[in-house]
Amino acid sequence: MPQLRKDPITGRWVIIAPERADRPHAIVRMRPEENGEPCPFCPGNESMTPPELLVHRPIGGAANGPGWTLRVVPNKFPALRVESQMFRRGQGPYDLLAGIGAHEVIIETAEHARQLHEQGAAQIHHVLAAFQSRMLDLVRDERLRHIVFFKNSGPAAGATLPHPHSQLVALPMVPGETRLEMDAAARHFAEKERCIFCDVIDHEMHQRERVVLETESFVALSPWAARTPFELALLPKEHRSQFEAAGSHELSGLAEALRLVLRKLDRALERPAVNLWLHTLPLREPRSPSYHWHLEIKPVISLQGGFEWASGFTINPTPPEEAAAFLRQTEVPA
Amino acid sequence: MPQLRKDPITGRWVIIAPERADRPHAIVRMRPEENGEPCPFCPGNESMTPPELLVHRPIGGAANGPGWTLRVVPNKFPALRVESQMFRRGQGPYDLLAGIGAHEVIIETAEHARQLHEQGAAQIHHVLAAFQSRMLDLVRDERLRHIVFFKNSGPAAGATLPHPHSQLVALPMVPGETRLEMDAAARHFAEKERCIFCDVIDHEMHQRERVVLETESFVALSPWAARTPFELALLPKEHRSQFEAAGSHELSGLAEALRLVLRKLDRALERPAVNLWLHTLPLREPRSPSYHWHLEIKPVISLQGGFEWASGFTINPTPPEEAAAFLRQTEVPA
Repeated sequence: MPQLRKDPITGRWVIIAPERADRPHAIVRMRPEENGEPCPFCPGNESMTPPELLVHRPIGGAANGPGWTLRVVPNKFPALRVESQMFRRGQGPYDLLAGIGAHEVIIETAEHARQLHEQGAAQIHHVLAAFQSRMLDLVRDERLRHIVFFKNSGPAAGATLPHPHSQLVALPMVPGETRLEMDAAARHFAEKERCIFCDVIDHEMHQRERVVLETESFVALSPWAARTPFELALLPKEHRSQFEAAGSHELSGLAEALRLVLRKLDRALERPAVNLWLHTLPLREPRSPSYHWHLEIKPVISLQGGFEWASGFTINPTPPEEAAAFLRQTEVPA
Repeated sequence: MPQLRKDPITGRWVIIAPERADRPHAIVRMRPEENGEPCPFCPGNESMTPPELLVHRPIGGAANGPGWTLRVVPNKFPALRVESQMFRRGQGPYDLLAGIGAHEVIIETAEHARQLHEQGAAQIHHVLAAFQSRMLDLVRDERLRHIVFFKNSGPAAGATLPHPHSQLVALPMVPGETRLEMDAAARHFAEKERCIFCDVIDHEMHQRERVVLETESFVALSPWAARTPFELALLPKEHRSQFEAAGSHELSGLAEALRLVLRKLDRALERPAVNLWLHTLPLREPRSPSYHWHLEIKPVISLQGGFEWASGFTINPTPPEEAAAFLRQTEVPA
């Protein structure tokens, strides 16, 4: 049974998830070879995953059989479980919470070797819409407070399977990173009645030095205090606080901008491993004038070491202005 | 010139250090082969490092020549520099600070292939004392506020050179992690007039389930909310807030306990890469009844992925109780 435990000093929560240790390749392997085992995310191997929660079958076909172009399934080795009984408990000086939640995998395509950035914008749109649709389903579980959408691509990014996929984890609390951003944004709004993200976007679009690309409705930035080389943020230019409220036109614009950014990174950095994730408001939080959803994208160029763990500081050897200039110049075929 | 930049939303500081990109192997390489180049940390190659700041020469010999058993030198590719002019500046909506500081390397031994845990306790004592001595020298620079001591061992831990070494980074501000621990400890003390670390030690030493080992004056724990498999904390059993005030007898006890812990990890996990770091009070901070210095030790078993970056949460597949039991049972030859 997974547990959520709170560190009594730092206040940080940790998911203790013993079942995750059972999955193959759970232990770090820096350059995993293909091991000849069948891919659980490939067509024909649907029985290797739990039954699908959502599926695209443009030409029809039976559930949990081939013919699909995108599937969402529960993670076979979940960090958290919907079926748990909710409890909160003290244990000596410590705090403990049932490992309630959900952990799902979005199998982005039936094509084992075609990465997300090699897809057309329409397929990327389907992936984003699939997450949004799962979010709108999970929000009905009142125990869940927040959903994290993320993608690990490549072994150095923590991916244990090469078949293109992203994941979502639904949590019974709002994670520290989201709380930190929301609180800072609320303070800025209280003082200035403006969204701090909108302020940053305005400044950057005027100043241009850290702008990687701009489309009709999105802008990709190399942030002023990028923690790692080529870390990027992708934001809607208009103020938007809830990802789940994005309409089809917005998702389509996001898909096109994300595709461009990922293709630039892939070309400029020669097929790097990449982490990406979404920051949006917690579930059932009312629309906010101060918070602004965005994607964060981080190619894995350097490793976190003892200094970063010790201090919370990061050392970034690539000035964000140089990263942005390099990516602006990187041309990608349409 | 390195810069310290503050993220306008999260408030986190980042060191932008372009010179670090010049070092060999700065770009991630998951399984670096020995590349046949001479090791800059080996005897005879002293000219490959900047001149030594501290050295042990039990049998004498000229400065910056062979004959030493431990050397401290400035990092050739420093994240921060002592020689900078201090400034604080706003830049549009952003905050900027000169990259003042120091970045030094403790070459722990002349023996290229003998890792720290393979040394006797006396040599480990020398390493800890060398750091302490550098701390007492650097404290005289009033611009410096905090010193981080850390060690990355193995490529997966971020080490770019295999010769055993640890590092220190002196900063012109108190890092977020230290501030977080100090603030929480101060709140606990204000309420209970007790040190929260002492409370945790008492609870664990009574409960035993997460105790890895106990010596006369130190205890190693697998923390209640360990963020990664086999993360450990090593603490003095008596209340101590300032590492720089530790006497020779204490350092000797720490060296013996650290040696045991590292040997257990090495044997139990089959020579893992390891990060370790010290948490102690900032420079010139008066002795504190609420804060308690300690070492944190983290073998690199799993990678941080998008979920961890997105949320600040970590998923740990190894319950701390199991890690502690496994390490308690792991016997190491004296």
